[in-house]
Amino acid sequence: MIYGRVALIGLGLIASSMAHAMRRGGLAGEIVGYARTAETRDVAREIGLCDRVVETAREAVEGADLVVLCVPVGAMDAVAREIAPALKPGATLSDVGSVKRAVIEAMAPHVPSGVHFVPAHPLAGTEYSGPRSGFATLFDNRWCILVPGEADRAAVDRLGRLWRGMGANVDEMDAGHHDLVLAVVSHTPHLIAYTMVGVAEHLEQVSNSEVIKYSASGFRDFTRIAASDPTMWRDVFLTNRDATLDILGRFTEELFVLQRAIRMGDGAQLHDYFTRTRAIRRGIVEAGQDTAAPDFGRVPAPEPGG
Amino acid sequence: MIYGRVALIGLGLIASSMAHAMRRGGLAGEIVGYARTAETRDVAREIGLCDRVVETAREAVEGADLVVLCVPVGAMDAVAREIAPALKPGATLSDVGSVKRAVIEAMAPHVPSGVHFVPAHPLAGTEYSGPRSGFATLFDNRWCILVPGEADRAAVDRLGRLWRGMGANVDEMDAGHHDLVLAVVSHTPHLIAYTMVGVAEHLEQVSNSEVIKYSASGFRDFTRIAASDPTMWRDVFLTNRDATLDILGRFTEELFVLQRAIRMGDGAQLHDYFTRTRAIRRGIVEAGQDTAAPDFGRVPAPEPGG
Repeated sequence: MIYGRVALIGLGLIASSMAHAMRRGGLAGEIVGYARTAETRDVAREIGLCDRVVETAREAVEGADLVVLCVPVGAMDAVAREIAPALKPGATLSDVGSVKRAVIEAMAPHVPSGVHFVPAHPLAGTEYSGPRSGFATLFDNRWCILVPGEADRAAVDRLGRLWRGMGANVDEMDAGHHDLVLAVVSHTPHLIAYTMVGVAEHLEQVSNSEVIKYSASGFRDFTRIAASDPTMWRDVFLTNRDATLDILGRFTEELFVLQRAIRMGDGAQLHDYFTRTRAIRRGIVEAGQDTAAPDFGRVPAPEPGG
Repeated sequence: MIYGRVALIGLGLIASSMAHAMRRGGLAGEIVGYARTAETRDVAREIGLCDRVVETAREAVEGADLVVLCVPVGAMDAVAREIAPALKPGATLSDVGSVKRAVIEAMAPHVPSGVHFVPAHPLAGTEYSGPRSGFATLFDNRWCILVPGEADRAAVDRLGRLWRGMGANVDEMDAGHHDLVLAVVSHTPHLIAYTMVGVAEHLEQVSNSEVIKYSASGFRDFTRIAASDPTMWRDVFLTNRDATLDILGRFTEELFVLQRAIRMGDGAQLHDYFTRTRAIRRGIVEAGQDTAAPDFGRVPAPEPGG
């Protein structure tokens, strides 16, 4: 056991997967949960997600040794403000937001002295959301990035042990670098996927049913990414604006270079470009972040809740 | 048995999968293969891919009831020219190219009278290539689009039966519409994925090892797409230039709208956009073109060659 009592504020995909993973590892004495809507709280009670599901965020954090905010990035400020007076001295306060600079700016002013604030971001997810979507293996072999700033070393190490216990690898980074890395590996790819799906939807000469039928040829992966939670992603782009716009600018620049090569019929340039991108893929397979199995429609994965 | 003798010219992913699928279904009396390089021919012989692997394309097509060109789009012209004099009267000539207008322009002038030319395109693939990469189930529940133009109805129907026997659903379309549909569901998504991977590779502030470690958060799917065969894709973009540039123009336009919404902080517009794209995803899952299983690193799939 790493923490006596853990409070999860927000009971979506990440929080519910944390609850399953903490139980799998025997990492928490008691798990207390809170969600904003009565519907989510009822579902969480029905499936026995936490030891207790309570009616207010404040009640959830009382006496907790670790409090983790698992709400959309845009809601962190209000939640931190609400729970701050009820936090136990010596407790650790963390979050799982996909953006770190904006979350730290929103939360840090509310953190009482004597509470250890250790922002975190597990790089794991699926296109599903809600308390039923979690499963114990979500974090296995994925990375969790801690952004500890000046936080107490013992509190940081303890939170790192929790994440390792839930199956993740743990890294530390400063907030600005985290936000830039995520803009490259996650935020901009998501925006591009949303855009491509939107183009297909708006195109009058090709029907949506044709797009759906023939999606196996590349488009399918984009639609999976573009099915992610709209509120979460709206907040990500609004709060990681600068890094996303920077990477988008570079993306458009490179796209124009390739577009020009197509227009000019420059086959050598295209071939060179497409050859170099293969190396990155090999690295990902070798690093265990994907299998080398050919993808032709995914094989059913472990049951949510398992 | 649908054809007595089938000749496969080019022995990459599609041809080798066809060989496995034709055997599975008992669809061909004899499968004869030819590949340009001695190395590929040797591998094909070693793994027993065809009944016979021969030294020239001309020899392969002699006496064949069906000849399928499975070479990059840019090579279709030269191969069609070479084999034309050796085609058996009454035989069907087909291909599996990802672009149809350019392939028809390249091949049609060489087709002798009395030979039925029925262009085709199976919408299936993986990021792997070569004679060892094929497997019998590649086409199962995928679509094969025939572009028969004015071809003999009996010949078209017979080729359709072959593709159904290999597990595919069969549709017919005109060449221009095919090329536009593919520009949307396949060609432009591939170009975008190549571009995004290229941006990550060129970015100095984020190392390639970071990109690889943290790829699970969206980028991973792009790298898989961007690991596809560079020669095939170079040819696709050079030969489906107009439709790809059309869709790319629309893509850039939509991307700029979303980029502006991020810059202006217009959360409502982003949320609306991200909500609409979810519907397309639901359609794809319902149409059986992907599973609804959450994706967190793919489960190993059937063995190639199986």
